[in-house]
Amino acid sequence: MSDHAFSLDDRAAIYRVIAERRDMRHFIEGEVAPELLARLLAAAHQAPSVGLMQPWRFLRITDRVLRSRIQQLVEDERVRTAEALGERSDDFMKLKVEGIGQCAEVLVVALSDDRERHIFGRRTLPEMDMASVSCAIQNLWLTARAEGLGMGWVSLFDPQALAELLAMPEGAWPLAVLCLGPVAEFYPVPMLVQEGWAIEQPLQDMLFENQWGVAG
Amino acid sequence: MSDHAFSLDDRAAIYRVIAERRDMRHFIEGEVAPELLARLLAAAHQAPSVGLMQPWRFLRITDRVLRSRIQQLVEDERVRTAEALGERSDDFMKLKVEGIGQCAEVLVVALSDDRERHIFGRRTLPEMDMASVSCAIQNLWLTARAEGLGMGWVSLFDPQALAELLAMPEGAWPLAVLCLGPVAEFYPVPMLVQEGWAIEQPLQDMLFENQWGVAG
Repeated sequence: MSDHAFSLDDRAAIYRVIAERRDMRHFIEGEVAPELLARLLAAAHQAPSVGLMQPWRFLRITDRVLRSRIQQLVEDERVRTAEALGERSDDFMKLKVEGIGQCAEVLVVALSDDRERHIFGRRTLPEMDMASVSCAIQNLWLTARAEGLGMGWVSLFDPQALAELLAMPEGAWPLAVLCLGPVAEFYPVPMLVQEGWAIEQPLQDMLFENQWGVAG
Repeated sequence: MSDHAFSLDDRAAIYRVIAERRDMRHFIEGEVAPELLARLLAAAHQAPSVGLMQPWRFLRITDRVLRSRIQQLVEDERVRTAEALGERSDDFMKLKVEGIGQCAEVLVVALSDDRERHIFGRRTLPEMDMASVSCAIQNLWLTARAEGLGMGWVSLFDPQALAELLAMPEGAWPLAVLCLGPVAEFYPVPMLVQEGWAIEQPLQDMLFENQWGVAG
């Protein structure tokens, strides 16, 4: 074992939070204390970023009218997604896909504008900025879970419409509507499994050695 | 405080690993025990994924010839990136951008093929599969740090060339060459800060309320 390893208890806490994090859609009344929200955002901000570009931007939505408009954008896309799903449309419409109306806090996370000048690590993979923002959101998710707060990442929206609603400049791009707040309980398994929408596939099927399709 | 919150010690461990995770390029000799690698990959596999599509695929590179070819792909792109950087070219060429030759384990992480059928959460944001894979990599990164292992995410490569080298089917797409293994020490601050390449910007500049550019 490495000299740099955390204690057994500390490692267990980290594995536990990864295992117990859930994509939440059900929230209860309550608030997120400002200093707690600040801690979560500080953890997000400590994410890795390609070439240290720190492409994440967080918009806290405190205006109730704006929150309701965001919810409407999500509802519009929910219907369009259902149409696109064909035979699974009815099952999809039964799922709860967002908790925007109930959660304590709504955060929109977006890619910054002015990203073209960041070439390091992105010349052939420009989507690395999206990867960095996703790592920041995962940090937020894990710390929220550890603090006992639920979080859900909603990606059912027209990004252009959401960008316009929040006066984003050209080049900025919303990736997430995050619902954050107290929950009655965390789903024991992912909600989409609980609801019979999807089945988790085992890691073994996703692990190869040296060549695609060759089991390790 | 929520009933679901972790203990103070456990929360501290989670904040600490987020703060001390580094994008490592310097490795020392040593191995990663198979059961430890399995733990890290299991943590990655517990990441959130859009519509539970689990789009991540991991290729463990154990063939030394293959590893050397991957390193060559990265070297090729390093030179092309330097050319693209213009006046910062010389500074860039002084940076260590990968540890493929020294690290204990090389893992290539890719998006799965056959992604078009996953519409849930992706109709308007198809890049959500990339987000899911990034969350998986962040889980791997955090648990590696907790276990005392360094990890670096290298994105300097031609994805088409790497896909061909590893016999990826059409639609699969490599996003990361991960270097993983023992390190002498973790950088006290991000290596790009330490080397004077970049300066970290404060979170405050990236936080808005309701509208882009409006401070909270």
